[in-house]
Amino acid sequence: MSDQNLTLMTDKYQINMIYAHWKNGTHRKKRVFEAYYRHNPFGNGFVVFAGLERIIQYLQLLKFTDEMIAYLAVQEEQYDSDFLEYLRTFTFSGTLRAVPEGTIIFPNEPIIQVEATVAEAQLVETAILTFLNYQSLIATKAARIRLIAPDEVLLEFGTRRAQEVDAAVWGARATYIVGFDATSNLMAGMQFGIPTKGTHAHSWVQDHDSEEDAFEGFARALPNQASFLVDTYDTLRSGLPSAIRVAKKMEQQGKQLRSIRIDSGDLAYLSKEARRILDEADLPYVKIIASNDLDENLIVELKNQGARIDVWGIGTKLITAYDQPALGGVYKVVSKEENGEWLPTIKISGNPEKVTTPGRKKLYRIMNLHTGKAEGDYIALEHEDVVNQPKLKLFDPIHTYHHKFVVDFEAQELLELIYEEGNLVYTLPTLQEIRSYHQRQLSSFWEEYMRRLNPEQYPVDLSQELWDLKYQMIQQKSMEKRV
Amino acid sequence: MSDQNLTLMTDKYQINMIYAHWKNGTHRKKRVFEAYYRHNPFGNGFVVFAGLERIIQYLQLLKFTDEMIAYLAVQEEQYDSDFLEYLRTFTFSGTLRAVPEGTIIFPNEPIIQVEATVAEAQLVETAILTFLNYQSLIATKAARIRLIAPDEVLLEFGTRRAQEVDAAVWGARATYIVGFDATSNLMAGMQFGIPTKGTHAHSWVQDHDSEEDAFEGFARALPNQASFLVDTYDTLRSGLPSAIRVAKKMEQQGKQLRSIRIDSGDLAYLSKEARRILDEADLPYVKIIASNDLDENLIVELKNQGARIDVWGIGTKLITAYDQPALGGVYKVVSKEENGEWLPTIKISGNPEKVTTPGRKKLYRIMNLHTGKAEGDYIALEHEDVVNQPKLKLFDPIHTYHHKFVVDFEAQELLELIYEEGNLVYTLPTLQEIRSYHQRQLSSFWEEYMRRLNPEQYPVDLSQELWDLKYQMIQQKSMEKRV
Repeated sequence: MSDQNLTLMTDKYQINMIYAHWKNGTHRKKRVFEAYYRHNPFGNGFVVFAGLERIIQYLQLLKFTDEMIAYLAVQEEQYDSDFLEYLRTFTFSGTLRAVPEGTIIFPNEPIIQVEATVAEAQLVETAILTFLNYQSLIATKAARIRLIAPDEVLLEFGTRRAQEVDAAVWGARATYIVGFDATSNLMAGMQFGIPTKGTHAHSWVQDHDSEEDAFEGFARALPNQASFLVDTYDTLRSGLPSAIRVAKKMEQQGKQLRSIRIDSGDLAYLSKEARRILDEADLPYVKIIASNDLDENLIVELKNQGARIDVWGIGTKLITAYDQPALGGVYKVVSKEENGEWLPTIKISGNPEKVTTPGRKKLYRIMNLHTGKAEGDYIALEHEDVVNQPKLKLFDPIHTYHHKFVVDFEAQELLELIYEEGNLVYTLPTLQEIRSYHQRQLSSFWEEYMRRLNPEQYPVDLSQELWDLKYQMIQQKSMEKRV
Repeated sequence: MSDQNLTLMTDKYQINMIYAHWKNGTHRKKRVFEAYYRHNPFGNGFVVFAGLERIIQYLQLLKFTDEMIAYLAVQEEQYDSDFLEYLRTFTFSGTLRAVPEGTIIFPNEPIIQVEATVAEAQLVETAILTFLNYQSLIATKAARIRLIAPDEVLLEFGTRRAQEVDAAVWGARATYIVGFDATSNLMAGMQFGIPTKGTHAHSWVQDHDSEEDAFEGFARALPNQASFLVDTYDTLRSGLPSAIRVAKKMEQQGKQLRSIRIDSGDLAYLSKEARRILDEADLPYVKIIASNDLDENLIVELKNQGARIDVWGIGTKLITAYDQPALGGVYKVVSKEENGEWLPTIKISGNPEKVTTPGRKKLYRIMNLHTGKAEGDYIALEHEDVVNQPKLKLFDPIHTYHHKFVVDFEAQELLELIYEEGNLVYTLPTLQEIRSYHQRQLSSFWEEYMRRLNPEQYPVDLSQELWDLKYQMIQQKSMEKRV
């Protein structure tokens, strides 16, 4: 576990709102906030949730240190010293629910739910969103790659292009959750127990008088892990022949060259030629690693052209989510406690998709007991009994005439209890458990929802009661505005 | 200073190469590596260098801890235990030169130069590139925004969409270097002394029975820093009239409302209307803050349409460099020591732009003494005398017939000595000094190079001697290949 206290990893407006609540005596009122995202990234049909382990690390260490208090004391806001004393005693005493890491999630579903004093719920918003947004984005990008390369080895190679250290390290973890095999990043390897892989760079070859010398020197040091980068000068005319000569010498010493790596040029053509030449040289066991600006879209094209690549090393475009580097996760208040009673709240917006769904909810995945596949997700108010219904009506929350009835289903509740009144009550799964869980999640969906391009839209529906509440509240708010 | 030991923030192939060098007895041979980037991002004409403070923090704490050694001991590579003992004593004993943070740099210029044992130079490559790539990318994006909004207040608001914590914190610093006024991120504020700003969120408004109640409550707590978010329900019909009523009450108490913030809707139309209405209400001093998916391109459009915005709050698109989230900085060996002699090295590539420029270099900015403007950058071999030349020929390294002669110039050397044989000999400037230096840097270029779209290409030229060396080595290498 990291020991970094990230309490000030928040926006100043959170502190200013907490201060204003404190000044007005409302800081201990309870609220429920829910985090969700609105649009799938990359044209994908889903997102893979990641970030929970980081959220827990953060909450476990949440505390304003003396140094932080001293810093806050000199702000232009001139916070009361009593407020700073209150911050000194600040802890997270709330209840937090979340879907487990590796869960397949969809737009507008509550994936994290925080019930806490308004002060606590505001403070933690920024960091929770940062963790959720980045890690889920990278897990989703990596899942897209895994889906189109199910049988190959996938290596995360992006560290030098990552957006700073935490992105490299937590990003590597996010790729591993969804089935990547290893990372090049040793810090991630040590911190999380992710397997690490590494070959050598062009500089190793340049450091020797010939490629053959370079490869021999490398094989001498690492005879069981030797992998030769063959594109420093000319892949097919120089690098590959040198690699083959050294592989033959290794055979005489009872060793096998593991792989060659190609990092430039046309990867389809070069890999096919390299495979043919290696096979003709009786080296069918030597694998081919490819790298160089890869992502799922290029990999599909290369595979369609018959590329013979066993191992994909994927860098920049994965670790930065290059084609969409931000997931727009948001965190909105849905319920507030007034005089001991919980009241749903709503935010109206000129932009209909930004209208929030009021009330404290539960999120169910409706599993068809015959097919074993998910029929849709179902969001209901907390008190509704969904699990014991014999028949459930699923209808589109926008085009409400579009509906279906399901019977013989199991309603699986997705949000798990993580913190109960400030106490961590959740046991973090191991990375291996998260990987297995993620694979089971994937297998519970029809492949139409998992397509890389133009996937079928998976149904995320509201219960009738929740839908009625939302549209009553919208009507009421717009009446108020007209008055 | 951060106390995080980032020694394992490296790719495994670096350790494997160090190991292979160690096994072959070559790990203490000296090399010179240079870092540079090949293409300007965002269609810009330049990059602003940032990342040096982080590089220094990293090098100061470089050391393999017992825990790291124990981790390396259980890798599949099965490193010799003597090698692990060698790592235990590993420190950075090299010489490092870099351009100062805030410097305007151009493609293919050496901006960091590392002379060290090959083991040291390899180990630090990954982290140096990560710091350089991300921080320079964000500084450049922020500089583009500052150039098109020279007179407005610029706030960095991106934390919740940043690619994890380090990106939020170091990214905020990068925007401040180039002239942003403040950040919302309190951690960055505390760590670097950057001013922080924050207003309130929609949740504050939702938490009250009316917008007027919400604004009054906020003004009560923070009468001198009050800024009201006016778009929760309807900016012009509800939010703004409420803000004006509260501003008038504040006037009666001798206070002034600082600003209103608009976070949705058409920012051009709404800001013009809001300005008109505020002025008509005798509140000309109330500033208008705008936020919502802004970047330099949208700001230009809004300004062209007469938007009346005093303060821009810029989030996602800045902190992730949304339109190009990676700068492809690279780190290449240019010289090696053999038997006490330094020899230039080159890497040939099928892709001509990937051919490296050999030899240990100096980087000069050629300043015209009459205009005070930069004529071009000039890269020469270390031993060449550039400073005392009466006349200098600048020629395009690709289209060599394209040339000019300069006289009455000053050749300013840009690379400064940071580490000398492992000792930090550089005094880090304050952020204020870096900001001033960056502004002076900007003023030394003709504005044609600074244009947001389709800027004129600034000349980056090689000395005749360096050009000759490079093309001789290319010819020699291609002869070798033919043999």
